[in-house]
Amino acid sequence: MTSIDTAIFEQRLTRVQERMAAVGIDLLVIGPSADFRYLTGHAAHTSERLTALLIPQHGESRLVVPRLEAPLYADLDGRLAIDAWDETDDPIARIAATASVVGGATLAVNDDLWSGFLLRIQAALPGHVTRSASVVLAPLRAVKDAAELTLLREASRRTDAAWEEFCFTTRLPGMTERGVADRLRALMAAHGIPEVAFCIVGSGPNGASPHHLTGNRVIERGDPVVIDFGGVYEGYYSDITRTPVAGEPEPAFVGAYETVLRAQQAAFEAIRPGTPCQEVDRAARRVITAAGFGDAFLHRVGHGLGLTEHESPYLVEGNTEPLRPGMVVSDEPGIYLAGCWGIRIEDSVAVTADGAERLNTVSRDLTVLG
Amino acid sequence: MTSIDTAIFEQRLTRVQERMAAVGIDLLVIGPSADFRYLTGHAAHTSERLTALLIPQHGESRLVVPRLEAPLYADLDGRLAIDAWDETDDPIARIAATASVVGGATLAVNDDLWSGFLLRIQAALPGHVTRSASVVLAPLRAVKDAAELTLLREASRRTDAAWEEFCFTTRLPGMTERGVADRLRALMAAHGIPEVAFCIVGSGPNGASPHHLTGNRVIERGDPVVIDFGGVYEGYYSDITRTPVAGEPEPAFVGAYETVLRAQQAAFEAIRPGTPCQEVDRAARRVITAAGFGDAFLHRVGHGLGLTEHESPYLVEGNTEPLRPGMVVSDEPGIYLAGCWGIRIEDSVAVTADGAERLNTVSRDLTVLG
Repeated sequence: MTSIDTAIFEQRLTRVQERMAAVGIDLLVIGPSADFRYLTGHAAHTSERLTALLIPQHGESRLVVPRLEAPLYADLDGRLAIDAWDETDDPIARIAATASVVGGATLAVNDDLWSGFLLRIQAALPGHVTRSASVVLAPLRAVKDAAELTLLREASRRTDAAWEEFCFTTRLPGMTERGVADRLRALMAAHGIPEVAFCIVGSGPNGASPHHLTGNRVIERGDPVVIDFGGVYEGYYSDITRTPVAGEPEPAFVGAYETVLRAQQAAFEAIRPGTPCQEVDRAARRVITAAGFGDAFLHRVGHGLGLTEHESPYLVEGNTEPLRPGMVVSDEPGIYLAGCWGIRIEDSVAVTADGAERLNTVSRDLTVLG
Repeated sequence: MTSIDTAIFEQRLTRVQERMAAVGIDLLVIGPSADFRYLTGHAAHTSERLTALLIPQHGESRLVVPRLEAPLYADLDGRLAIDAWDETDDPIARIAATASVVGGATLAVNDDLWSGFLLRIQAALPGHVTRSASVVLAPLRAVKDAAELTLLREASRRTDAAWEEFCFTTRLPGMTERGVADRLRALMAAHGIPEVAFCIVGSGPNGASPHHLTGNRVIERGDPVVIDFGGVYEGYYSDITRTPVAGEPEPAFVGAYETVLRAQQAAFEAIRPGTPCQEVDRAARRVITAAGFGDAFLHRVGHGLGLTEHESPYLVEGNTEPLRPGMVVSDEPGIYLAGCWGIRIEDSVAVTADGAERLNTVSRDLTVLG
């Protein structure tokens, strides 16, 4: 359950049904997922026992749920119909029955519903067309309301506090990558974020692998260390990257660091309502390419975040969708030199009415933790 | 990465390809999942950037992977073709191209692949039939080999050690459910299982909800407390439930506890090669029904476990599949009385050549932690 008010869930459901009508979807089937949480407040878990929220274009929604888990959804009783199934029942038959009652031939499922369920739904409804529910939900979820922005700001604020304490209290040389991650987890918990969702610690040459799996390498004096971490606060994610150095860095690194810093600022300045997403990527890429590192910037400049760590909008070449106030995105250019080191500097950023607001406000300057 | 030998992964791949031929599947598409780990050793993470192992019925397999994550799979180079895609490439097109080269019109995807990917694959290959890869992989994964059994035994042994230490050091009255869970997490970590996958603590009336969400209720003297927890050891799960009491229990509870204990033993005695799965469920249910609690045993008696916490075979009415040596299942009957309490007693059990072996060996007797 989140701290978000029941009335907000009702508004969201209304907007979902309006959009279903606009795009021609008769029935949504939403299994446990961020979409499910967005619509119900419940952080339901996915398992082989199907739980699904069924939303028709008009009329009352329905929760299909294993009987042994029905008590978890008592608060929804009255807001929607509860359809509990027993261990020997077939929940797919319940979905097919609802689809028949609803009528129409187009249904859509959440993007992260397990394919095993989708295949069974398709088999049970051979005349139907199945689509991705993200055509309905992604644009709604991409624009955060005031309550969501408050939670996202708080998630980032607490993450910043953990990072500042880390910087004040940590000397990197001699620590293992895992030791760094353990220390950050403890600090996140101390600052009220017990659920750390990811913590990439890529030291020295490991930093050249953008999604390096944090391991047992011992950090050496002078190593740059890419530290990319985030946690979940009342369902909402934080996501920050800093690249401190374990002692005096070499001059080549310092130059590249300044380049990434300028690219991150250029992307930040491009973030405002109306800017096509790809222009934010281009703004950062221009700076890095001009400095001669174009091929070493291996990934897009950013992604949306909210109830998941990666969601719409994606700040990537080819995405012409315009930014809108209330969107929250990462701004995270990087340079990766195989065999040497990596650099990534990332803040979470909210699109405001006339520009952008950094949710992470800790220093981005080159920091020596030696 | 697991400690399992490379040769074993090659054997698994061979058996998968043999089974694909037997059931008529031309191409498997396996995204990050337990199936993926079973076939590669890699605990890959799922994201909107598709990673997929493509296995044709004959010939070399192929890994489609985002370029920024390709360094994570360096060990697979040589065992299969690595096909890295850039941020602006379409990985679905790579899959469609492979399907064309392979020929045939039937492909199968892992059960927990995101539906968003499946829908895009179906759109890119309109002439193809898509199926669930579990028809190939579930029977193979259900029968554990010697290396897997060693890891599952070790996962349960460490979990037992955590539970024994918990029993020696904990007095339940006055603790919150969350406090119990935190204590168990710390003990699991101390016994070498840092990744606790689930920890249900249902105290007093909360125990009547089999999958209760652990909360802030303070445990009162005399409360039964359903504690169902498990963790991951080198990829393999443990899963145990005990229901201690926070002080002297009431007589009605003691009688019901004895019933669940006898039901759990009856199910254990039914577990042997050749027994249809549903007979194990029936064996426990007979005992509970005879004691007058049939309606209060809300769920199946058990499920397989291995690289996931719930997998084939399911011990449920309607499943006539025979047990085979090397299968590992949970044995977990329960009685749940709404408004009063719940009882569940669970061990993980391996099917042996001529019977069954409990992987959890800590006491199942009624335990007072008051």
